[in-house]
Parts: sequence; C-alpha cells; structure tokens
Amino acid sequence: MSQPLCIAIAGLGTVGAGTLRVLQQHGDLLAARAGRPLAVTAVSAKSRTKDRGVSIDDVAWFDDPVAMAREAEADVVIELIGGEDGPAKATCEAALAAGRHVVTANKALLAVNGAGLADAAAQAGKALNFEAAVAGGIPIVKALREGLAGNNITRVYGILNGTCNYILTEMREQRRSFEDVLDEAQRLGYAEAEPSMDVDGIDAGQKLALLSSLAFGSRINFDGVYIEGIRHISLLDIDYAEELGYRIKLLGSAQRTERGLEQRVYPRMVDQRQPIAHVEGAENAVVAIGDFVGNTMFQGAGAGAGPTASAVVADIVDIARDHRTPTLGISAGELESLPEAPIGSHRGPYYVRLMVSDRPGVIADVTAVFRDEAVSIESMIQRARSETEAVPVVLNMHECEEAAMQRALSRIATLDSVVEAPTMIRIESLA
Amino acid sequence: MSQPLCIAIAGLGTVGAGTLRVLQQHGDLLAARAGRPLAVTAVSAKSRTKDRGVSIDDVAWFDDPVAMAREAEADVVIELIGGEDGPAKATCEAALAAGRHVVTANKALLAVNGAGLADAAAQAGKALNFEAAVAGGIPIVKALREGLAGNNITRVYGILNGTCNYILTEMREQRRSFEDVLDEAQRLGYAEAEPSMDVDGIDAGQKLALLSSLAFGSRINFDGVYIEGIRHISLLDIDYAEELGYRIKLLGSAQRTERGLEQRVYPRMVDQRQPIAHVEGAENAVVAIGDFVGNTMFQGAGAGAGPTASAVVADIVDIARDHRTPTLGISAGELESLPEAPIGSHRGPYYVRLMVSDRPGVIADVTAVFRDEAVSIESMIQRARSETEAVPVVLNMHECEEAAMQRALSRIATLDSVVEAPTMIRIESLA
Repeated sequence: MSQPLCIAIAGLGTVGAGTLRVLQQHGDLLAARAGRPLAVTAVSAKSRTKDRGVSIDDVAWFDDPVAMAREAEADVVIELIGGEDGPAKATCEAALAAGRHVVTANKALLAVNGAGLADAAAQAGKALNFEAAVAGGIPIVKALREGLAGNNITRVYGILNGTCNYILTEMREQRRSFEDVLDEAQRLGYAEAEPSMDVDGIDAGQKLALLSSLAFGSRINFDGVYIEGIRHISLLDIDYAEELGYRIKLLGSAQRTERGLEQRVYPRMVDQRQPIAHVEGAENAVVAIGDFVGNTMFQGAGAGAGPTASAVVADIVDIARDHRTPTLGISAGELESLPEAPIGSHRGPYYVRLMVSDRPGVIADVTAVFRDEAVSIESMIQRARSETEAVPVVLNMHECEEAAMQRALSRIATLDSVVEAPTMIRIESLA
Repeated sequence: MSQPLCIAIAGLGTVGAGTLRVLQQHGDLLAARAGRPLAVTAVSAKSRTKDRGVSIDDVAWFDDPVAMAREAEADVVIELIGGEDGPAKATCEAALAAGRHVVTANKALLAVNGAGLADAAAQAGKALNFEAAVAGGIPIVKALREGLAGNNITRVYGILNGTCNYILTEMREQRRSFEDVLDEAQRLGYAEAEPSMDVDGIDAGQKLALLSSLAFGSRINFDGVYIEGIRHISLLDIDYAEELGYRIKLLGSAQRTERGLEQRVYPRMVDQRQPIAHVEGAENAVVAIGDFVGNTMFQGAGAGAGPTASAVVADIVDIARDHRTPTLGISAGELESLPEAPIGSHRGPYYVRLMVSDRPGVIADVTAVFRDEAVSIESMIQRARSETEAVPVVLNMHECEEAAMQRALSRIATLDSVVEAPTMIRIESLA
C-alpha cells in the first residue's frame, strides 16, 4: 500500500497551481485517505520561472505536455491546459495511449471530444475522471456515477455557470443593468474579457452535455444542447419576475421524454419557493431527480482555484485507491445515442414582455395574434402609460407548444405598435 | 466482469423491501453501472409469508440472520434489522468473520458499536459501507470519504432528523404547538409512537457521530455528542425568531477547535439568509466546509423506503465495482481519539425568553444577574403587558461563554417574578 501514486500535471494556471498547493499542503492527510502517498513527479506549463506561490523545483520539467504525457514517470496525467482540442486533447490521448490514467477539469474538451476520449480510456483500461469539469468543487459527477447509481435518473438540472448567476443576482439586488454588472465583473476579473462562453450559455451547455450523459447513459452530444444566454434579460424582467413570484435563473436541464432527449440551457422564471431559486451569487447547484431517491440538490462553489483543485484531487485519490468507474458511468460501448427533442416541441407556460406605443388597438392586435395561434393568455400587466415613450406590456401565457409561441412572437414583432423585439422567458415547472 | 455479486439481505421491513424492489426493478441498469449482475441469493426476516409487494420465492430463506451471514452463498450481507446491538450486530460480525462485505443502514449500531465493527472490517479486509445510515438518500458519506477527500474539513453540520424539521416547519407554517404537530405526525405514521429518538435529538446525534468521524478522521464517539431536543421550543419562540431574522432548526454540528472536538445537537436560531434555513419539511441537508472547496451543501430526503434503498444500493454497486474505502475514510488504526470540548466552553450569542409577572423591578432583577455574570444584553423585547398573566420578555444576548450563561439562567430561574423555566436557544453563526 505504500507505493506512491506518481502524478504529472499539464498546465499550471490557477487550477494547476491550486492542485499543486492541495497536494503539497495535505500530503499526510491525502496519503491517509488514499492509502498511499501522492507524489507529483513532473509538470509542464508555458513558463518555468513564473512565480506561482508553489515550488516546482523537485519535479521533472517538460516544455511539451504531450511529451510529458508520453515520457514522464507518472501513473496519472492531470490535464489543466484548457481548450476543446489542441494540446489538451493531444495530452489526454498521449497519456491514455501510454497506459496512464487521466484527470481533467476541461469541460470544453469533454463536451466536444469526450465520447472519443471515453472510448480511448475504455480501450486502454484506464480512468478518465473529470469531477472538476462540472460545477467545480461540487462532487456531482461522483454523485451521478456512484452515489445515485440505484436510480433511474428522470431529470437533472442546475445553475451551471457562476458568472451568469452572479450577474443575475447583482442585477436584482443592486438594481443594475446587465451591461453595468458585466462591466464590473470584467474589471474585477470575475468575467472574461470575451464573456461569450459564460453569458451566451455555452459553458453551461458544455457542462449540461456531460451531466446528461452521466444521468441517462447516453453518448455526449453537446451539439444537441439548445442554448440561449442572458444578454436579453433586463432589469424590467427581473422586477416583473419578483412581482409574479418567480426568480430568473439561467438553468441547464436535461430529461428523457417521449419526444426525445431534452438538453436545454436558457434563462427561466423559477418559482421562488424552489430551493434553487435561492442559490445566489457565483454559487452553482445541481438537482438530480431519481425514481427512488426523489429530489437531491448539491450546492457549492462552481469555479475558482480551491474548489476546482478540490475536485481534481478527489479524482486523483480515487485512482490511488484503485477505484475505477467507466468515464460516463457505464461502459463506453453501452452508451446510447438518443435522439434530441427539438426546442419547438417544448411545452410550458411563458412570460412575454412587449414594449409598445401606448395607443388604441395595440392590445387588440397582440391578443388577436395569440388567439390565431391558439395560445391563451393567463394574465396581463400594463401599468405605465405614456404618450411619448414605449411602455411595457407583460403577458403570462398558459402552457402551450413552443412552435406556436414562436410563430406568434414572430408576427407580433412585425406589428407597428410593438417597438422592440419581444422578450420571451420560459416559466419553469420544476415539480 | 460477468460474475454476479451475490447479496444476502437481513431484515425485510420498509427499507429491506425497498432495497429488493430497486434490485428487481433496475436489474439491467444496475448490471450496466456495476459492470456485473447483482443477484439476491438469500434473505432473512421475521415472517416468511408477509406480503411485501416483492417476491422472495427464488431466494434462500433463513430464519436466523446470523446463520445466513455465516452460511449463505453471498459476497455481501445487507443488515437492515436495526437496533444498536443484538441480532444486527451479531449479523454484521458473523458476515465479516465469514469474509463477506457488509452494508448497513443502521445508525444506532454504528454510533454505538461502529468503532469495533470498523476494526473488524479492516481485519477481514472487507467493506463496511453505511451510506444509508446518515441523511437517507443523500450521498453524504461518499462525499466526505471521497468527493471532498482533498480537503481538511473544518466543520460539518446539518439537518439530520426529518421528523424534527417537519415538526418545526409545521409549527411555523400552520401556527400550531409542538404537541399538536407531534400528535398528528404520529397519527399519520411520520413519527414513532415513542418519539424520543427523534424529538430528543438522539437519532440526529447518532448520525452526527458518524459524520464527525468521517470528517475529522476521529474514532466514532457518540457518548461525546452533546444533545438537546426540540420539546421545549414553543410557537412563541418560533415567532420571535422570525421577527429577529432567524429560523429555528435542529442542527447537528461538529468541528475541531482548540478546546477539543465539538459534537453538538441542539435547536438553533439560524440566520434566514443561510441556505439551510430554507430546508423545510421532512428534508435533510448537510453542509460540509473544506479548506479548499469552501461551503458545500447536500440536500434531499433523509428517510423513507425509496431514498434509503437508493443509498443501500449505491453501497452495493461500489462493492460490485471493487471500490474499497476504509469504513471511516482512513484506515481504522489511524483514526484519532479526540478529546471532547465540554458544552460549558461553547461561546456564542444567545436568545433567552423569560415568562415573568409584569411588576416593577423584574427587569432590574434579571439584568442584575446577567451583569453579575458579565453577560451583556444586546437587545430586549417586552411588548405584551398584563396584570394577571405572565408575559414574555425576550433577550438577545451578546456572545458569551455557555458556563456563564448557564449560571445566570439558574439564578434567574429562582427569581420570584420568573414564573417558568427560562427558554434558552443558541444563536448560530454559520459563517
């Protein structure tokens, strides 16, 4: 039991340095938990000399992570380079080909190339662990692969992007616009200079594709994820949501239905009585619903050096203990290719906000369109009046089919008295 | 990989029958996840003929669970008999002695005899898994043993008894007394006829002793858990809590401090902004705080056939996959015996409610006692006035030492104008 597990780390950015720090700081604790010492034997990064607050003096240095994956004295290669292909992919492939286990925090890589990498891991008989790729420090991959293994998972959903949740929370609490909060988040380093991965929902979509595969035993299908981000959410919508008893959250959700596999990321109005409505700031949370266990929720930090490193190290400890679970919970060959349900087949209630010129007939025109599409209105709020400026009209729509809603909105957008593109937010029934 | 894992189940009550149901209903799914079929080969229970909604025709029957543990053709014995010793303990011991793995849902057994059983499992080189013993379907044992293995856990706390949380929720939401809600819960079968295990905090204390051992690598020490239940909580306190921005929850919490290991179960005033304040009804939730991961919360059903069976089956799948983790996360020989911090050394703010005769001098008397003990008052509420009936006086006390608070309350209880034993509820800082 005292043979150390030898570890090579590719990429020493925030997460890589954090992982080194955990391994150095908790050497004894980890040896006790893993039943053997964990020893970092090699690293590879862009700069050998950069000060990262952790020492790399005693380990082998490689300029090329792929060479390291091939040649280093290592049982496990930790890929923390990032990016959906390029050196990250090459490093993982080289490690598996050389008969080494792989741990990665790279959701983009797995969302796009995970199916093939899972096959490669299965062929090599090695682990490909990725706890850190979904919801940071929250051990949700382990929960789905192992802790809830007795269940047919009927649905999985969650707040998968901390930046979006932070922006939505700040907008509501500080009464600030999307642009304002994003600007500040960028200045403080919480959001990227190019924020699209976060605010357009792509990052959440990548994580959802992984959760969905774990939950349903399906092959990863990131292309099948329907994605909308939060750029179109205004403070006005956030206020109306509160008034109507909802909170706006960017959720990713996946479920198997008769129409196919639904994998969807978009902002939703969530009932304020739901626990997930109260997950605020940069936190992440994932709800998994199983046929025996019922609803379980897992909440915690979804990003950051410490939480992400915590997940990476848990994956390493599993390998040290000789725990092997197939990458996606069942053997790669048994993963199903499930058809995707088109977004047009979605059914649910909707919130619609129109900005209209306040003149006679506008409501009649709008309601006529909805009537023509057989979409019925549950309630309407029109409070502000103005002869000069556009005023908001908010409609709560009964459950209907998305395709009909989209047709109605396209026609409404062309009405003279409707002065902005309509805002539509799906109301989520999380029952 | 196709050799089945043979399972013997001791005890076919709610959880035993639920476990059989999961295994029968999800045979293919479980075989895919476990990498091999799971086959029930033997059962033992009080009645062979009772209708449990699941068939036991094809499996060996044993009248005596201990004989089954010794003789059945089984790789794993599932102990679902219950009770802190007796046949439950004998069954586990016989199974380990016969070289079989053990899975149990029995928190009482482990709280009282877990240290010895963990040693026996270590000596036998077999698994002793107990996911179902803590917080039902929530995979918190796995989270602490594996998912958060990279962390020094600084604190773990949670709502560990669904019956108490249900009672407190109903009292608040329905404005009913403790006795009323308990009566109804007993009639509906949510609470036992002898409710002491639940409402006096013993069940929560047993679970806390297990969590604490997992979190801190200490030997299970249930005797060291300080326990108070919820019988003394009145609707009046619940209302004052709301007014003061708190919610009353029965929490178990454990942390290592300079004063020793603190393992404590008692009702607390929890800040309403804390996520755990919003865990309502029969739900359980556990928060684990790690030095790298930060705060993580795990929420779900803490009892019931389905959730508990879900946890039992997850433990079985781990065994089928050959995942071996020492019972308490590190090898039994390395578990530390940590000294317990006495409750008298607790420091924190306090809520105190007195029922007093409304006459001159009473407040002067009360405040004089607190002054003598150097315990200072942050705020006081006395609203109702009555010449004939006792009226409540509510005091919010600044942080002080428990010993001083207890001395003050003992003296206050003897004052003529104080007509009931003082109610004291600790205010919890969950920061």
